Amino acid sequence: MPTHYDIFIKNCRILQPAGQGHQLVSGSIGIRHGRLTAIGAAGLGPGATADRLIEGDGLVAMPGLVNCHVHGAMTLFRGLADDLPLMTWLEEHIFPAEARFVSAEMVYWCTKLAAAEMLLSGTTTAADGYFYMEAAARAYRESGMRAILGQAVVDFPVPGVADPGQNIKAVTAFIDGFPPSSLLQPAVFAHSPYTCSAETLVRARAVAREKEVPFFIHLAETRGEELLIGAGDLSPVAYLDSLALLDPGVIAVHCVWLSEADMDILARRGCRVVTCPESNMKLGSGVAPVPAMLARHIPVGLGTDSCASNNDLDLFGEMDSCAKLAKVHNMQPELLPAQEVLTMATSMGAACLGLADIGTLAVGMKADLILVDCRSPRLTPLFSPDLLVYGARGGDVDTVIVDGRLVVSQGEVLTMDVQEIMARVRALAGQVAEADHGK
Amino acid sequence: MPTHYDIFIKNCRILQPAGQGHQLVSGSIGIRHGRLTAIGAAGLGPGATADRLIEGDGLVAMPGLVNCHVHGAMTLFRGLADDLPLMTWLEEHIFPAEARFVSAEMVYWCTKLAAAEMLLSGTTTAADGYFYMEAAARAYRESGMRAILGQAVVDFPVPGVADPGQNIKAVTAFIDGFPPSSLLQPAVFAHSPYTCSAETLVRARAVAREKEVPFFIHLAETRGEELLIGAGDLSPVAYLDSLALLDPGVIAVHCVWLSEADMDILARRGCRVVTCPESNMKLGSGVAPVPAMLARHIPVGLGTDSCASNNDLDLFGEMDSCAKLAKVHNMQPELLPAQEVLTMATSMGAACLGLADIGTLAVGMKADLILVDCRSPRLTPLFSPDLLVYGARGGDVDTVIVDGRLVVSQGEVLTMDVQEIMARVRALAGQVAEADHGK
Repeated sequence: MPTHYDIFIKNCRILQPAGQGHQLVSGSIGIRHGRLTAIGAAGLGPGATADRLIEGDGLVAMPGLVNCHVHGAMTLFRGLADDLPLMTWLEEHIFPAEARFVSAEMVYWCTKLAAAEMLLSGTTTAADGYFYMEAAARAYRESGMRAILGQAVVDFPVPGVADPGQNIKAVTAFIDGFPPSSLLQPAVFAHSPYTCSAETLVRARAVAREKEVPFFIHLAETRGEELLIGAGDLSPVAYLDSLALLDPGVIAVHCVWLSEADMDILARRGCRVVTCPESNMKLGSGVAPVPAMLARHIPVGLGTDSCASNNDLDLFGEMDSCAKLAKVHNMQPELLPAQEVLTMATSMGAACLGLADIGTLAVGMKADLILVDCRSPRLTPLFSPDLLVYGARGGDVDTVIVDGRLVVSQGEVLTMDVQEIMARVRALAGQVAEADHGK
Repeated sequence: MPTHYDIFIKNCRILQPAGQGHQLVSGSIGIRHGRLTAIGAAGLGPGATADRLIEGDGLVAMPGLVNCHVHGAMTLFRGLADDLPLMTWLEEHIFPAEARFVSAEMVYWCTKLAAAEMLLSGTTTAADGYFYMEAAARAYRESGMRAILGQAVVDFPVPGVADPGQNIKAVTAFIDGFPPSSLLQPAVFAHSPYTCSAETLVRARAVAREKEVPFFIHLAETRGEELLIGAGDLSPVAYLDSLALLDPGVIAVHCVWLSEADMDILARRGCRVVTCPESNMKLGSGVAPVPAMLARHIPVGLGTDSCASNNDLDLFGEMDSCAKLAKVHNMQPELLPAQEVLTMATSMGAACLGLADIGTLAVGMKADLILVDCRSPRLTPLFSPDLLVYGARGGDVDTVIVDGRLVVSQGEVLTMDVQEIMARVRALAGQVAEADHGK
């Protein structure tokens, strides 16, 4: 029987693993039934057919990027208040705006905006944590992205869960009611060890274990977090370990302030870590010891955090910042090379989220891939894939395919009405600005 | 007589100074004979005419960005070798490639590529320092950019000046032979206090004073530079001061490793400084004390440095990195706010280069301005001009006007054949890669 492809990408350059890093190999890519079914030098071949043929000249094919930590709906608060101390920012701007404006409707539209921004900048998978996550799931479903949705657990009243005594019940109901999906899965997002009591943390961890879903938690983001927790001499990591929470199901986000002993615990327990360098920079939180964690074989994924503290969701820029920040912080230009950061944003990010069949372009893997247009002065000449980190930006993404489905073509989202989404969010933002300035 | 405009931009949002910062004001902009002749709320008005009318809906007008330090022709070496210690990178890759491939022809084409990249990302003025600067001047002239061209002075054989004994003569001839131009001016670029002897520095400074052109010098980029200079206990800054070189004509580039006393000297002498945060990050050089310099009222401009150590020439990304790096380095999120960085990249950058009538959008100023397209998810919502720093990137630039002339329209360069430039540089890069791998 002659070969048939749903999509065939002809004569592009393909990012492929090579030793500890990557290389660009000229070739073509065939996709069928959501998977990569051909990767090789040849074209379509005699008798082979394709429903859609993409000319790859000038394009680099690479795995879709994996954003391991985002609060999608917070696009509404993008740039609402910048350059402020963390507590002023949170207490005078973000919390009041959240209390007033976060609703299922808001989460739906603002998560759609986040999904549009992420798809347009080459992110095919996101791990999102916020409130009203059923509404977020609806937004991601319509977008065509792959996502893990963590319903937030906090010990104070939050949007959608007015009674904190119901927070465990709410996350359980969210997981139980989650519609089966090949692209989406639910998770528990315990906000942090200083906003959840020990009892809440233990109960939330138990739910995640029982339901076999990932457990996300903000951890050691800010210096002195142990004082907020109030567990005596224990560091935030040691505290979670003392509660028997840490195991390979845990994805710890930020991990800026870790001692050597903390890193040893995380490595020993098989935990995974997400670093969000731009958010840590903008909030002045500090620099996560990424090279030291990688040296201990802790999988470290890359996250943008919310765009309120970034202010974008572009993982290309995040890769660049991640590599450069490690170098300048340690004054070692050879630290965290571009090649390693590319891995963090693709296959290691996938591993961090427990997704085994995305993150690498190889036959049999799920077809989550992007095409980066390299025909611009900024990407000329193109000596090596390093330039995908140090030169490319989200705006260079031409094509995005998730699970074998074309969702962005020539820089346009095919799955959603982006103009309508922007109009909806702008209207909401007008109300937010009015309320914020009125204070 | 009815009002006439060469270009009229209707109903955009305009970045305007406001207190210590900026605000976005809705309005229109009229341009005539290379200058801004109208800025206001109204449209064209009765009887008024315009040769070209630009609809500004969804666009933000801001001053063209000023790149205070670039080595344009080094686009050829973009990403040739990344993530290496400085000396390995220079001695095993960059210097051999420069010795073999830098020619007047190479400088011409590779500077054109740099100019195309800068224009496309909203930079209207560049201070460039390299070799064969007559060829670079030809490239900038054809691009329509505003530029200051510094011919490099070094005490070893360099491309175009085989005999270092002729280096002062060469820079003098370059300045004397510089064709009159409203957009371009020559300068002296003394490479550094460790590659030029005291005698060369003094002679180069004398030439710049006599010819009344700016004097650029790399200064205190890397820790321990004083050991390379070998002037006893003197810091690099104190050493230049001991030679009586420092005055308001000096533009000192990098200034990463400064003591309080060094900053006092720079302030007292009226020197201007250029910071290149992304290059300093990628090379692991360190973090320049920008807030401390600004507190001393030292004008600090922003530069990309060469794209070999960056790896792009996008000042939007550079603004973002500059603001975030200061915050995380000092663990103070309120440090170097976006508003201040916007000033550094526009009016303060202009002041740094001694250009009085660019950098602000006000009637009577030269018409160097750009239009940023904000109709994308990444720039939605747009609460404040901060998002031009934390969200916008060069690729969002729609229109570029220099000296009243439209040079980029809808993201396309009008003054040069960008396809031909990229093809030329790619062909050269093929030879560079072959030579580099053969080693």
